[in-house]
Amino acid sequence: MEIQKIETQFLEYVRKMTSYNEAIGLMYWDLRTGAPKKGVEQRSEVIGMLSSEVFKMSTSEEMAAYLAKLSSPQVKEQLSEITSKTLEECQKEYDRNKKIPADEFKEYVVLQSKAESVWEQAKHESNFSMFEPYLEKLVAFNKKFIGYWGYEGNKYNTLLDMYEPGVTVDILDKVFLQLREHIVPLVKAIAESDSKPETSFLYNHFPKEKQRAVSLELLKEMGYDFNAGRLDETVHPFATGLNPGDVRVTTNYDENDFRTAVFGTIHEGGHALYEQNISQSLVGTPLCSGTSMGIHESQSLFYENIVGRSLAYWKKNYDLLKEYSSGQFEGISIEDFYRGINESKPSFIRIEADELTYPLHVMVRYEIEKGLFNDEIEVKDLPKIWNAKYEEYLGITPENDAKGVLQDVHWAGGSFGYFPSYALGYMYAAQLKQAMLKDLPNYDTLLEEGNLQPIKEWMTEKVHQHGKLKKPLEILNEVTGEGLNASHLISYLEEKYSGVYHL
Amino acid sequence: MEIQKIETQFLEYVRKMTSYNEAIGLMYWDLRTGAPKKGVEQRSEVIGMLSSEVFKMSTSEEMAAYLAKLSSPQVKEQLSEITSKTLEECQKEYDRNKKIPADEFKEYVVLQSKAESVWEQAKHESNFSMFEPYLEKLVAFNKKFIGYWGYEGNKYNTLLDMYEPGVTVDILDKVFLQLREHIVPLVKAIAESDSKPETSFLYNHFPKEKQRAVSLELLKEMGYDFNAGRLDETVHPFATGLNPGDVRVTTNYDENDFRTAVFGTIHEGGHALYEQNISQSLVGTPLCSGTSMGIHESQSLFYENIVGRSLAYWKKNYDLLKEYSSGQFEGISIEDFYRGINESKPSFIRIEADELTYPLHVMVRYEIEKGLFNDEIEVKDLPKIWNAKYEEYLGITPENDAKGVLQDVHWAGGSFGYFPSYALGYMYAAQLKQAMLKDLPNYDTLLEEGNLQPIKEWMTEKVHQHGKLKKPLEILNEVTGEGLNASHLISYLEEKYSGVYHL
Repeated sequence: MEIQKIETQFLEYVRKMTSYNEAIGLMYWDLRTGAPKKGVEQRSEVIGMLSSEVFKMSTSEEMAAYLAKLSSPQVKEQLSEITSKTLEECQKEYDRNKKIPADEFKEYVVLQSKAESVWEQAKHESNFSMFEPYLEKLVAFNKKFIGYWGYEGNKYNTLLDMYEPGVTVDILDKVFLQLREHIVPLVKAIAESDSKPETSFLYNHFPKEKQRAVSLELLKEMGYDFNAGRLDETVHPFATGLNPGDVRVTTNYDENDFRTAVFGTIHEGGHALYEQNISQSLVGTPLCSGTSMGIHESQSLFYENIVGRSLAYWKKNYDLLKEYSSGQFEGISIEDFYRGINESKPSFIRIEADELTYPLHVMVRYEIEKGLFNDEIEVKDLPKIWNAKYEEYLGITPENDAKGVLQDVHWAGGSFGYFPSYALGYMYAAQLKQAMLKDLPNYDTLLEEGNLQPIKEWMTEKVHQHGKLKKPLEILNEVTGEGLNASHLISYLEEKYSGVYHL
Repeated sequence: MEIQKIETQFLEYVRKMTSYNEAIGLMYWDLRTGAPKKGVEQRSEVIGMLSSEVFKMSTSEEMAAYLAKLSSPQVKEQLSEITSKTLEECQKEYDRNKKIPADEFKEYVVLQSKAESVWEQAKHESNFSMFEPYLEKLVAFNKKFIGYWGYEGNKYNTLLDMYEPGVTVDILDKVFLQLREHIVPLVKAIAESDSKPETSFLYNHFPKEKQRAVSLELLKEMGYDFNAGRLDETVHPFATGLNPGDVRVTTNYDENDFRTAVFGTIHEGGHALYEQNISQSLVGTPLCSGTSMGIHESQSLFYENIVGRSLAYWKKNYDLLKEYSSGQFEGISIEDFYRGINESKPSFIRIEADELTYPLHVMVRYEIEKGLFNDEIEVKDLPKIWNAKYEEYLGITPENDAKGVLQDVHWAGGSFGYFPSYALGYMYAAQLKQAMLKDLPNYDTLLEEGNLQPIKEWMTEKVHQHGKLKKPLEILNEVTGEGLNASHLISYLEEKYSGVYHL
């Protein structure tokens, strides 16, 4: 069969690309976990060499020929589902990379790397005007790219689609509004509550090695497979799936706040469970990874917050934590502990925000990005707009731009459309939890018993195994029977925080 | 300039090959130091994919074109020295790979991998006849390859040249005979000596973490740069130079014999100093690595034995070792310690042999390989010949083939011509030491003071920096003013062991 032969060649070609990406992934992991610093420059060159090879392959004439030969409807229906979806991914990548004129793309890559280092300096000096011209250009480039790529409905949709295929401004406007209408009053009620949790016990000295031991136990309990992964230490925690048999997690230890490592590890562990349990049949294709940023975050946030900050979970694990600690929890009841780790209050920095206020940080960024790409907001006005939005949503005004508009690296790297995924992750997680309860009505008992196996298996069946074979909203619909719905997250937050703050 | 443009393209092409090799090197290091086992199969595929890419590049039409365009004498004299030598390396590789018909090479690769697993089983069962047909075929293939490659003087020279360019049967016959004539009587004298060193104190319990601490200190003292390397634990110790800024060392800890880690670390540290100090100007070319197996071993053996098993070295470091130990050296004088770590006696296994008897193990293998490729020895007679040679050189006969002819993996992997490098390393090391004494007459004092910096700098100037820019015998001649000369090693061994055994 002629078609079968081309299909085999195409899959072989794609396998080479994923192999190169796996090598690149390992080099990044190594750079972040302990590569000797004098080798970094040369290693970066090796990474650059391989990355540019993958880029060339994704836009080569050979790729174009495969796409042309295999994409017609009559041919496509003869292909396996995996080949067919792989073809779609490659087509998307091909179009995205090919439609931008080569010299413009090159200029953009240079700009990105310059902008990142300028941003770092600007943040250090809390000087927005230093970063402003670069941000102007980054936005202008992306506007031009949207022109090349085209858009449906709203220009910003094209950017959203890169991180969360199928999720649009229409959808987000609706759910974010609904979310805000419930979170903002809840934040106010908490601020006014007379029943604040005690938190001083959180900050006692907890030796690093003991924190590592706890982290290992918690990962194991989640169902993280240490024969297919390992835990290392880095400044910024991450999880990386090189292939389903090699998904590595890192964490960071703050000896004066055990929560950094404990919740960081659980969070990255959630990402890792996803990557470890993708079907082996997808290995060697671009489908062998999480389907979107938002669904990925749903897994990490489900484990970090819905599981990891619940009372039932700590009924099982509080003794373990006490055992490894140096006595800091003496006299602290489990209820007080639970309330302590769920303290909520408005703050300036997104990545330090608690579960309740976090979505508000995302919304500020979403509103700004949407405005920028629809010519309703200008870059020069960002600090003013940023501060006004923080006042409106969170009731606080950042004292400077370092703690405000300059805090995140995303824009400096040209990543517009990324932020909403974080909030989507919360909503997906709450929706998945609701659906899970129907199949696992004994969910709370499972947590109290430390029996997280059925929970992981449920997630694997519904989410993990599919990799990119299914789109985010497709998974959501199949598993929950509905589209994006903020009310599950709202109920969860209202119930939880009414309890914590005795509202 | 047309030539300059081709030269630039050629160097860019070569840089890509070395980049891929660097990525492969890191993946190997990772596989051996802690990669999760479930990811190994897929990672091996990635390594295979990249390796075959490098192989293709080394024999491609593009490579052929570069070689054709740049190799003519008129063109070559316009090239930089680095390009010119790089060209020679590529030509050698090209010829070696191209001259073997593709289907034969493929068959040979399959045979190699089968032979290795059969060898493992045969060794386990101590059953030479199981391995014999594979070894027959491996030898036959290599004979055919020699036919394709051609030879000068002796067929075996072609194989020797792969590991030690310029070293021939004529040279080796002469030095090995000379060496044997002095070592064999020395071994006998030691066996008959009444003054054997005490060794029981060597086998006390020495905790792994403490051994690691000692290893780190000794590496630092040698001048190993931890900003360009790291120390990890593996079953089989090794050093790997990914680039001069990233040269990693591993060691193995035996809690009942600290010598495994201490001398293993110093040995690998010697290899690492070589790779860390290759000139930056060679990065990205095939010249950026040790010039030969033998010169590499000269570095590891110089540090392990000539430095690391000397009395002067331990005058500085014995207290350090004592400090980390759990008291096993109490009441053991430094002279007794020195004698203990220099115990020598005939043994069956090459890799466990002491410094004095080691060259004899190598000679057995050399004689056999030379005989095989000159049709003077048949594979079926190897066990008999092996045992006779051990009796002749070492005065002992292996009790079975697992401890005899089946002990090494080299032949199963088709590596014929490799073994002599180990003995050459000893001879080179002793010659270098003699030359060093002229420039550093205070050598012993330097060791006693733990000031190894001038020693490393001397080695860097004379050996390390050049990478493959100079051939092994070229280095030897330039540094010592003479060719291969066994008498320096002989004097060193005679003097040392007369002392240790009070002969």
